[in-house]
Amino acid sequence: MSKSIFYHAGCPVCISAEHDIINLIGADNVEIVNIDENRNRISEAEQAGVESVPALVTPNGHTLHINFGASMADVKG
Amino acid sequence: MSKSIFYHAGCPVCISAEHDIINLIGADNVEIVNIDENRNRISEAEQAGVESVPALVTPNGHTLHINFGASMADVKG
Repeated sequence: MSKSIFYHAGCPVCISAEHDIINLIGADNVEIVNIDENRNRISEAEQAGVESVPALVTPNGHTLHINFGASMADVKG
Repeated sequence: MSKSIFYHAGCPVCISAEHDIINLIGADNVEIVNIDENRNRISEAEQAGVESVPALVTPNGHTLHINFGASMADVKG
C-alpha cells in the first residue's frame, strides 16, 4: 500500500488526532477509516496490529497507536 | 513554532517510531529531541503535555502520544 490508513471509532480523542494527522501528513496521504461505521474493516485493522484507536498504519505496515480513545474490545463490544 | 517536536528517550519503541514519523512527515519538518540525553528539555516536554515517550508535539501544540516506550516518571527516575 502507498497510503497510510488512520483507523478510528468516532470518539473525541479520535477526531482530534485525525485532524492532527491530516495536518501533519496531508489528506491525500492517508485513508480515514471509521471502524465503528465500517465494522467489516475491524478484522483488517486487527490483522494490521491495531490494538486501540486511534491508530495509524504506515505504508510499510507499522502501527502507531496514538493517544488512547478506545480499545478494540470496546469497539467490538 | 513551525516544526513538530518528537520527544523520545532512546528506547527501541522510540527509535522505531522516530523512523516512522520521519518517513511520514519528513526530517525537515520535525525536531528530534532525546530527553534522556538532553535532560534540560524534560520540563519543556512536560509543559507541552508529554506524559510518555515517544510523543510528537504538533506545530499547533497538540501532543500525540505514540505507542508506549516509557513514562516520563521512568525517564526522570
